[in-house]
Amino acid sequence: MSIIDELTSALGPAKIALDTATLTAYAVDQAPVLDYQLPQAVVRAETVEDVQSTVRACAAHGVPLVARGAGTGVSGGAHASKDCIVLSLERMNRILDLNPEDETAAVEPGVINADLNAAAAVHGLMYAPDPASFKLSTIGGNVATNAGGLRCAKYGVTRDSVLALDVVLADGSLIHTGHQTFKGVAGYDLTGLFVGSEGTLGIVVGITVRLKYLPQDVHTIAAFYPDFRSAAAGVLAVGKARVQPAIMELLDSGTLAQLDEVHGSDLASRGASLLLIQTDGFGAAAEAAAIRPVLVAGGAVVTMEASAEAEQLVDLRRNSRGVEVDDEYRVGEDVAVPRSRLVDYAEALETMAATHEVKLKVVAHAGDGNLHPTFWVDRVDKTVAADAMVRLGAALDESITLALALGGTITGEHGIGQYKLRWLGLEQKEPVRELQRRIKELFDPAGILNPGKAI
Amino acid sequence: MSIIDELTSALGPAKIALDTATLTAYAVDQAPVLDYQLPQAVVRAETVEDVQSTVRACAAHGVPLVARGAGTGVSGGAHASKDCIVLSLERMNRILDLNPEDETAAVEPGVINADLNAAAAVHGLMYAPDPASFKLSTIGGNVATNAGGLRCAKYGVTRDSVLALDVVLADGSLIHTGHQTFKGVAGYDLTGLFVGSEGTLGIVVGITVRLKYLPQDVHTIAAFYPDFRSAAAGVLAVGKARVQPAIMELLDSGTLAQLDEVHGSDLASRGASLLLIQTDGFGAAAEAAAIRPVLVAGGAVVTMEASAEAEQLVDLRRNSRGVEVDDEYRVGEDVAVPRSRLVDYAEALETMAATHEVKLKVVAHAGDGNLHPTFWVDRVDKTVAADAMVRLGAALDESITLALALGGTITGEHGIGQYKLRWLGLEQKEPVRELQRRIKELFDPAGILNPGKAI
Ligand SMILES: Cc1cc2nc3c(=O)[nH]c(=O)nc-3n(C[C@H](O)[C@H](O)[C@H](O)COP(=O)(O)OP(=O)(O)OC[C@H]3O[C@@H](n4cnc5c(N)ncnc54)[C@H](O)[C@@H]3O)c2cc1C
Ligand SMILES: Cc1cc2nc3c(=O)[nH]c(=O)nc-3n(C[C@H](O)[C@H](O)[C@H](O)COP(=O)(O)OP(=O)(O)OC[C@H]3O[C@@H](n4cnc5c(N)ncnc54)[C@H](O)[C@@H]3O)c2cc1C
Repeated sequence: MSIIDELTSALGPAKIALDTATLTAYAVDQAPVLDYQLPQAVVRAETVEDVQSTVRACAAHGVPLVARGAGTGVSGGAHASKDCIVLSLERMNRILDLNPEDETAAVEPGVINADLNAAAAVHGLMYAPDPASFKLSTIGGNVATNAGGLRCAKYGVTRDSVLALDVVLADGSLIHTGHQTFKGVAGYDLTGLFVGSEGTLGIVVGITVRLKYLPQDVHTIAAFYPDFRSAAAGVLAVGKARVQPAIMELLDSGTLAQLDEVHGSDLASRGASLLLIQTDGFGAAAEAAAIRPVLVAGGAVVTMEASAEAEQLVDLRRNSRGVEVDDEYRVGEDVAVPRSRLVDYAEALETMAATHEVKLKVVAHAGDGNLHPTFWVDRVDKTVAADAMVRLGAALDESITLALALGGTITGEHGIGQYKLRWLGLEQKEPVRELQRRIKELFDPAGILNPGKAI
Repeated sequence: MSIIDELTSALGPAKIALDTATLTAYAVDQAPVLDYQLPQAVVRAETVEDVQSTVRACAAHGVPLVARGAGTGVSGGAHASKDCIVLSLERMNRILDLNPEDETAAVEPGVINADLNAAAAVHGLMYAPDPASFKLSTIGGNVATNAGGLRCAKYGVTRDSVLALDVVLADGSLIHTGHQTFKGVAGYDLTGLFVGSEGTLGIVVGITVRLKYLPQDVHTIAAFYPDFRSAAAGVLAVGKARVQPAIMELLDSGTLAQLDEVHGSDLASRGASLLLIQTDGFGAAAEAAAIRPVLVAGGAVVTMEASAEAEQLVDLRRNSRGVEVDDEYRVGEDVAVPRSRLVDYAEALETMAATHEVKLKVVAHAGDGNLHPTFWVDRVDKTVAADAMVRLGAALDESITLALALGGTITGEHGIGQYKLRWLGLEQKEPVRELQRRIKELFDPAGILNPGKAI
């Protein structure tokens, strides 16, 4: 029996898509594609048993299996590999339990981040990790990438909110890791091992998360700076004042120009760089009051009170990625540097773009030292000159090696996926990589789970 | 050459102790002892190379190696095993780097938690995880147990503050895991795997931690309740008001009586249970103001303003364990339950003590649902009646099985060590335990690192 026949008989035909339109739609996520492949089939699982049957069929036939949430990943973690089955979890989208007294929720992997937040908000709660893709991306995908987001400087990344997981292993068996309580240290942290493993160690089919309190009060500050360097310095100045905002987002002139173009705003005329700061909680007003003079002293023009406009800007920022999809001519990076190096790094990025004659825009979760520079070259008739590709590659490589030289990482939150594999050896030494390969072998000896990704 | 000769020639005699007094002092931590053993020798490492040489010698001779920080563990994780070498890290106590702009510190494993906090405070920073043993325990021990503490409900546990580790593996090689940045998702989370692994996967020889801001303001509330149940209900009531205190500690009447005895205070006369709450940060006063009426409505007598007395009580609480060491007649537990079950569980503990006619006192990191009941039986001339031991065992087992039945865990922060192994199978199913054994095998095929502990 072929794997398609086996899947069809196990799950029923309604959950298996074989048509080209579907296969094409599920072939790639939002990252540049290095090796375009169509899957053999797309399975849309509706139950844990569906997932188990699919994994077992893949194991029996030695067929690669690529898990997929919403496909908003930007590292190619959900790109199809040769002859694979894509296993979509998006139909497993039920919030199974939301317990306002325990301050926890148990969800299926396909629940959209924003939907969980909407359900939690009714009880004065929130699910803290908020990738800018929160209206689209799934909790399962967030877990598999250990997603960050805007308010992570204060509230932590996905890992910090995940208490327990249900995982289907490479042999189709189902295990439960972690604890329903806020704390628990029995045995090794298997939960943490699955978080961020990009579908290479197991398929996440259930997630218990801790919820946090929705802040009583929120103050938002928009600070316009004459240049990118001084805006980055503003981030450090707030830190030196020992105030912890919930959000500190940095936008460069390229980003402002793009927002203006898309939304008809006039941000670029107000400064060459924008630092957006949000404080929250009972101390929000006092924190905002402590922050404003610090920013002004650093050369910023600052909105004078918590203003609707500043909050609108945060909404714009949440949508400042995704206006166009990355491709080989346009690559978004995800480096992070120690906070003290933010200013130097920000300045160096601008120099790189000038030296290599490529376009640049930068947004940054600046409180975390996590920057998303996007480098691109213009296309004429969908093609670019060969030398432009060389220049683009040079700018990308330089941005990576400099981040590493400053003590940084090649990926703060998006993951290695497929696209960043070429740089991983620059960050991690061979013994550490070998340990990871052996962990992968332990969990997935036949190598069917998302091969060629993450490690 | 014997292992002792080999160690002596590699490290020099000054770092190797063979005298009975030292061997005895390093034979056990603060947990009950199930199988008393003296180590062959105690090695006091001063450098990473010392650790590597010791691990290599143990590997060559097939001798078990038990890492040890300050020996304040309460699960027997640092108890000597038969013919082992105890490797003390306490002399590796240098803060290598404290970077106030990056808000990070790099330390050797033997640095005392309180010393790191003192060094950080100079810069307006703190190392957040604060086990009540913070004046004694080491950062290496905190990492190896994933220690919690008083302010963890707000600031997270040890795992949440650890960015990177240097680890000596079972073959004596040295690896570096993690990242110097606040965020980083390259590859699998090896750092998280070592955190909480109780010296069974590798020896932690360097730790990079993230620091948080010292709060600008602190308010402390002492709420006395007529009974334990309503004090526990107070914790939930504060949660329902959606206010996140830094500290929420619950003390029962047994604990109050003991504090009175040791410190000459008169707490027991003021109530049968005490809930201590500390708010911090820019919103501290507003949060305290929001909390007080909630507590009063629940039947508490509450100190009316941020008072020196309440802060003294927090200091007392930080010392409310450790007045006497646990032994076979006196066992401190570390269960955690989902918050909503706190009230029922608190009440059930009192019933258990009465039913089994054993003594009980309870302190709890109540914000986390993490309780430390201590059950004991009285001794006459250092012995107790056989039936008393049976009753003690029955109370302990019941407290564990009830916590699990309520969705809890057998260990919120102290770890499995040696003492809690007998209950681990009740919490974790065989496939999950088997996965952990295979991870252990992968890291330590010869099984020399702290055998018979943690998993
Ligand atoms: C506009 C935009 C903004 C973004 N902003 C952010 C941001 O602020 N922070 C951030 O961290 N990321 C951001 N991202 C990246 C992306 O949204 C995140 O990586 C997100 O977590 C992916 O979720 P997803 O459901 O789309 O997963 P997918 O893209 O479908 O998959 C991502 C990876 O997880 C694996 N996977 C998915 N589901 C499962 C599962 N159930 N079990 C096992 N493996 C699984 C896939 O195989 C793949 O390797 C952004 C992306 C876009 C397009
Ligand atoms: C009075 C008192 C109060 C306490 N309060 C708390 C509390 O609030 N929260 C809490 O979580 N715990 C608490 N504890 C328990 C204990 O202090 C913690 O577990 C602490 O983290 C142990 O640190 P240590 O340096 O004493 O480690 P040790 O007891 O020496 O060792 C603990 C474990 O870690 C391993 N280990 C130690 N150092 C290393 C290393 N460098 N590399 C690898 N493995 C290593 C040991 O082998 C052992 O398994 C308390 C204990 C006491 C006595």
